[in-house]
Amino acid sequence: MTTEIIAVGTELLLGQIANTNAQFLAQKLSEVGASCYFQTIVGDNPDRLKSALEIASKRADVIITTGGLGPTSDDLTKEIIAEFCDLDCVLDAESLRRIEERFTKMGKLCMAQNNVKQAEMPRGCIILQNNHGTAPGAIVEAAKPRSKDGERVYIMLPGPPFEMKSMFNEHVHSYLAQRTGEVIYSKMLKIFGIGESDLEEKLGNIMKSKNPTIAMYAKPGEVMLRLTTRAANAEQADAALEPLRAKVCAILGNMVYGEGENYSLAAAVVDLLKQRNLKVSFAESCTGGLAAAKLTAIAGAAEVFDGGVVTYSNQQKEKLLNVPPEMLESHGAVSRQVAIAMATGVRKLTKSDIGIGITGIAGPGGGTKEKPVGLVYIGICGVDGKTECTELRLAGEREAIRERTALHALNMVRQAVGNNR
Amino acid sequence: MTTEIIAVGTELLLGQIANTNAQFLAQKLSEVGASCYFQTIVGDNPDRLKSALEIASKRADVIITTGGLGPTSDDLTKEIIAEFCDLDCVLDAESLRRIEERFTKMGKLCMAQNNVKQAEMPRGCIILQNNHGTAPGAIVEAAKPRSKDGERVYIMLPGPPFEMKSMFNEHVHSYLAQRTGEVIYSKMLKIFGIGESDLEEKLGNIMKSKNPTIAMYAKPGEVMLRLTTRAANAEQADAALEPLRAKVCAILGNMVYGEGENYSLAAAVVDLLKQRNLKVSFAESCTGGLAAAKLTAIAGAAEVFDGGVVTYSNQQKEKLLNVPPEMLESHGAVSRQVAIAMATGVRKLTKSDIGIGITGIAGPGGGTKEKPVGLVYIGICGVDGKTECTELRLAGEREAIRERTALHALNMVRQAVGNNR
Repeated sequence: MTTEIIAVGTELLLGQIANTNAQFLAQKLSEVGASCYFQTIVGDNPDRLKSALEIASKRADVIITTGGLGPTSDDLTKEIIAEFCDLDCVLDAESLRRIEERFTKMGKLCMAQNNVKQAEMPRGCIILQNNHGTAPGAIVEAAKPRSKDGERVYIMLPGPPFEMKSMFNEHVHSYLAQRTGEVIYSKMLKIFGIGESDLEEKLGNIMKSKNPTIAMYAKPGEVMLRLTTRAANAEQADAALEPLRAKVCAILGNMVYGEGENYSLAAAVVDLLKQRNLKVSFAESCTGGLAAAKLTAIAGAAEVFDGGVVTYSNQQKEKLLNVPPEMLESHGAVSRQVAIAMATGVRKLTKSDIGIGITGIAGPGGGTKEKPVGLVYIGICGVDGKTECTELRLAGEREAIRERTALHALNMVRQAVGNNR
Repeated sequence: MTTEIIAVGTELLLGQIANTNAQFLAQKLSEVGASCYFQTIVGDNPDRLKSALEIASKRADVIITTGGLGPTSDDLTKEIIAEFCDLDCVLDAESLRRIEERFTKMGKLCMAQNNVKQAEMPRGCIILQNNHGTAPGAIVEAAKPRSKDGERVYIMLPGPPFEMKSMFNEHVHSYLAQRTGEVIYSKMLKIFGIGESDLEEKLGNIMKSKNPTIAMYAKPGEVMLRLTTRAANAEQADAALEPLRAKVCAILGNMVYGEGENYSLAAAVVDLLKQRNLKVSFAESCTGGLAAAKLTAIAGAAEVFDGGVVTYSNQQKEKLLNVPPEMLESHGAVSRQVAIAMATGVRKLTKSDIGIGITGIAGPGGGTKEKPVGLVYIGICGVDGKTECTELRLAGEREAIRERTALHALNMVRQAVGNNR
């Protein structure tokens, strides 16, 4: 089953609001095993909406629209689709009653005349009642759309995201699942420590796997692989994905830090520290609190993190962390020695098991030929008191450098504690 | 001039990421006075991308694509557009040099072979160098596209939002403004401390202003007003916008913290502290470093910030900040008293002029009937040593609560130091 999404609204075309409806629908469509190859945004304009419908009807079996079901004269999705399918609109008594009830509930004595229009529905359609707003939605199963390829289904949903999502979940999800009769199941592997190109080269032919399929996504500082298969249920899907998952993990080793789209590197670190009953602390210079902020974004971080310091100036490094002034003088604040002294200092100060010291040049100013913008040292003082230091040379803007530095620091904790795979 | 946006990427079709690029472009296109009637999303599929190009080329003069310029075999926007315009691709030495340089900077000895593909550009195109990533963009002015209606322009931008936005602002904005011959000029007022509905009520009829127009945008924790007018040059635009700007500022007072889309609350705080030659420090519990991270995101923060602490546990509050254990015992860590003691403690510890103490319950666990999730206290110890405390009761998820708490803390610094308007 091929679907298409048409979002109707001039405010979308002008970029005044983001098209979060289409993103939601796209996710849901892939969950019920429906293919979706195109999404379109079109304004509140009859001719252009008609032309978008014509194009979509040639490409897809099911066309889902959002928006244009409101009471104003601009709202014309329902009218245009009815016309397109050679149907007239008739007043639906139940829809009118619900709209009137809604107005009474809101304490309005009489509803505006143009709200009546919202209860006029394409003849013979399936009406989708709106439990969170006035506009009902509709499903039109058109035997004779302007296409020679058979039946087309038009599903009209309201524009306000909350109304649209609720209506989809309450009515449309089951309608579509019944039509496709299958579910797409996918697993996301989260990866740190390798770029997109290197990853593609490393995986080689595996990236061309057809069933399950494998796809790569990148966010600043991390890469994800999504393994996808069609199956009748979750267990069968799991079994089908396992060989590919195992192959990828064997190649990437502990660069794979976890599974699940929303499982972050920070969450992996918190989980790992919890398992080992260890606590970490950060002494941050160039990241200015970002590493700690990322860790504490995870609920339950309190079990593995008591505190840390942001030592932006040399004085604070000396005062709070006992970094020797001679060391700062001779090696500079951005140096291996200082990163390690910061790590050792914060571990002692907070009595944590693992201390991390972060110092670098985030830019845009402050770089020199020997120590350019993007040079970062991350020191670690581990459970056994042993120290190590990683040098990074990062490209990009100040925020990208800080962001990736914080992620690298978290990853060093992960690697020091061991891999939870 | 009619434009169209085609966003290329299977991850968009699957709803894995929101199409924020199209929203950005739509806003920018309306700024330069270009009409945009359709936006399309299409996956990384040669035939479907070609068909989307064919449809768009019939409807628009300028087609802007985002995505599909990466190094992998999935990335084929450039190749398809070149083919569509009957152009071959040729290696651009300067682009290759820049990509290689980028890899060298990142400390990689050799770049992956498939990155070379990124330097192969449609013959005769205008190359848009990418200052924030490897993929160059391109403008193809095609005399003979598959349309009988004359020249079509294809503008190819990369997919990663930061690279795309920078490339648009640096190269494409002026290119398009030149073609349309007029400039839409706008000024963004940044506002903190009032919600959208309240703001709309407060401004009343001002929101209906026709020339200049006024539009509201909201991000978590802040609201923006964009004042827009058409003008021949910046000075005339400035003069046209001034009366409206002054009216808004008179009503909102110091809730307006600055001007410019990218001017953040943190930047306003840094500027203000610089002007007054003051330093701030943070003692953070529930925000876990986020307030300091926001401040240090601003280049030049070192002038106004030496350091601070993250005291997540009670012990660290006692040890680093001298918060009395009896106080923690009797009032609890989330209390006015502790917030003020943290503020006073960190001011003393770091010898700053202003100390901020942040303590609260970010959730999802840890809330009680008396102290629910979202309860936050922010203490401030000012230049004169006087203390104050603000109580917040925030709704939403853990990250939203932390985010808005950090912004409130920054805003308290701003208000304490005085308003820079």
